[in-house]
Amino acid sequence: MAVVPDRREVERWDREDPLGRLREQFVIPDDRLVYLDGNSLGRPTRASVEAVRRALEEEWGAGLIGSWEREWLALPESVGDLIGTRLLGARPGEVVVADSTTVNLARLLRGAARARADRTVVVVEEDNFPTDHYLVQELAADEGMAVRVVPAHIDHGAAPEAMAAALDADVAVACFSHVAYRSGARADMAAVTAAAHAAGALVVWDLSHSAGALPVDLEGSGADLAVGCTYKYLNGGPGAPAFLYVRASLQDRLAVPVWGWFAQQDRFEMATPFLRRPGIGGFVVGTPPVLALRSVEASVGVLAGAGLEALGRKSRRLSELAVALLDAWLAPLGAALASPRPASRRGSHLTVAHPRARELRAALARSGIVTDYRSPERLRLGLAPATTRFTDVWDVFAALRQLCAR
Amino acid sequence: MAVVPDRREVERWDREDPLGRLREQFVIPDDRLVYLDGNSLGRPTRASVEAVRRALEEEWGAGLIGSWEREWLALPESVGDLIGTRLLGARPGEVVVADSTTVNLARLLRGAARARADRTVVVVEEDNFPTDHYLVQELAADEGMAVRVVPAHIDHGAAPEAMAAALDADVAVACFSHVAYRSGARADMAAVTAAAHAAGALVVWDLSHSAGALPVDLEGSGADLAVGCTYKYLNGGPGAPAFLYVRASLQDRLAVPVWGWFAQQDRFEMATPFLRRPGIGGFVVGTPPVLALRSVEASVGVLAGAGLEALGRKSRRLSELAVALLDAWLAPLGAALASPRPASRRGSHLTVAHPRARELRAALARSGIVTDYRSPERLRLGLAPATTRFTDVWDVFAALRQLCAR
Repeated sequence: MAVVPDRREVERWDREDPLGRLREQFVIPDDRLVYLDGNSLGRPTRASVEAVRRALEEEWGAGLIGSWEREWLALPESVGDLIGTRLLGARPGEVVVADSTTVNLARLLRGAARARADRTVVVVEEDNFPTDHYLVQELAADEGMAVRVVPAHIDHGAAPEAMAAALDADVAVACFSHVAYRSGARADMAAVTAAAHAAGALVVWDLSHSAGALPVDLEGSGADLAVGCTYKYLNGGPGAPAFLYVRASLQDRLAVPVWGWFAQQDRFEMATPFLRRPGIGGFVVGTPPVLALRSVEASVGVLAGAGLEALGRKSRRLSELAVALLDAWLAPLGAALASPRPASRRGSHLTVAHPRARELRAALARSGIVTDYRSPERLRLGLAPATTRFTDVWDVFAALRQLCAR
Repeated sequence: MAVVPDRREVERWDREDPLGRLREQFVIPDDRLVYLDGNSLGRPTRASVEAVRRALEEEWGAGLIGSWEREWLALPESVGDLIGTRLLGARPGEVVVADSTTVNLARLLRGAARARADRTVVVVEEDNFPTDHYLVQELAADEGMAVRVVPAHIDHGAAPEAMAAALDADVAVACFSHVAYRSGARADMAAVTAAAHAAGALVVWDLSHSAGALPVDLEGSGADLAVGCTYKYLNGGPGAPAFLYVRASLQDRLAVPVWGWFAQQDRFEMATPFLRRPGIGGFVVGTPPVLALRSVEASVGVLAGAGLEALGRKSRRLSELAVALLDAWLAPLGAALASPRPASRRGSHLTVAHPRARELRAALARSGIVTDYRSPERLRLGLAPATTRFTDVWDVFAALRQLCAR
């Protein structure tokens, strides 16, 4: 059995953690709670609470309709730039915050399929989030295209060669997760994008499980299109709006469905017909959700202040501690790592397979440790670097060790 | 010149107004401000401010992911029922709150066109909001359908006979506003629906400018489909999510696009393929916006408590005062009513045409009276019954009288 740190050692890691003070910027009513579900719903920042209060009472209550012109109209693009340039490696004017991940993904998939209208195949990875599958199936059904599913190992994700090999000259568009929602397997965005470009196909990346927790380099990897939610590692709040990325050089060439008035040039002229605004602002649909945008702006500000590199480093240290404890304590008791073993192939959550995973999740919850169940019989541990302590990781595995030994 | 009440008389109306105390339930930092733009953005209720604070700090901050199961999953349908049954004359299970008006309208138009796939025409009224036109044009372009535009007088709306006559056996679906965004012209929902049913066509009603301010009777009028925003007379907040109505008997027969995971049966099983949940819950797309839903729930609760009949009566009295003052004071000075004259043909806003309308709006704003400019050269006065005082109406016309006399 490998040597693993004892709790006092891990307490020292927390004390010396350069991001240790970051927790103070979050609303944490019960400091004893071990919250490892930040990949489903990140905690609120104090800044978000204050920003939403200000939006309610001052901007809306006092500023009323004038706040649109003064402050709110610019929010989808300014918050998009904040996320894009500080956390996703995009250039200014390439990311906008609007609508839901589903709606954004549906629109980009359609736009991409139209841009490759002579092609007949749409690709999705087997272990993508269900929405990705639904939208790919719907697109294929509507357009008479075939769906090609890249097989994925439930714990390790798809092989990079399998993803690249699925992208041939018949493929219009592929939908891939950067980090898989269940296993946490991380795709090689640059390699897959290069394969797509070689085949003349487009890829829409779903960044829901990586944005804010890991370095993402959209420009460096040559990515064309991406979407993602803001309520996981971006701490935007339940049902906060999603972001959407379109590489600058593609923006004018991509015809996306759902022509909304917020995308219209000179929108207050109320003119018909529809003339989409140039740039990323033309990818908004309807009136954007201001309260949630203010929350996202504030929480992303906190994360950007901490620095994406620092967050990524801590995420990696947290998950390496988790793997070491799992190997030492749980593997002998019938649990198995259900995520890729190399840290470079993982996102910021770690999955543990155990025949009684559902029961384990409930038992942990009763002792103040929140984790997530994912079918089949997997416990998902979200190691949000901004708010997770090394002792949280130690404690969940210590508790699991006791529970699994029973 | 007709006899109009003096300000003291109108002050008495405010004192005796059965809804006069309702203002106390709203956030109104400056009681002197005359805010007649409540049809673009209704004021916040105190209940919304508290509900959002609670959602942020308690439900999200303390309750974390568990709040989805405990409270939030039900919100789109429960808030939908609140709006539907208390303000729109719908039955329980017919209204859901989700996404934006644009996305909801796009989906219902497509669903309706598919349900009448053998028909070739989509109808829109000339003076509908631009989004309605964009979506109708987009649908027609995609499906090879023709657009038939019902002509509308810019000030009086479309003639009821013209709307009915446009609905023949070629028509799959029509998109009509219940109340026109510029003139405030109100359509006869029951008569138009009867004409649609006689022709075998479907109508999607846009209720954005009537919901919350006027009695709407979806069931009584036989309406099939409707959408509307919640940030105007429903006081839900800037960019709050929209509602969507599908008559119960149509729900299982309508195939709407954008297959999202929130519409999936047993959504946490993460199964593919897509199997839409039965009922109105199947019309949600992605993760619903919780903060805004809590705001909408609270504000609609305040309005429902006041009673839709009382709100509708006050709206009518406000607009009748406005018409009387316009006739007496402004008509001799070159202004004209740019809304239908019979109260039964109007919504809750009133429009004034004047060659210098843009300038008048700016001058009013400088003296603390907020109104709205609408092209061409029209001043729109939103008479939100929950928060508008009779003296507000008196004051805006007194100010306009001075400005127009210059």
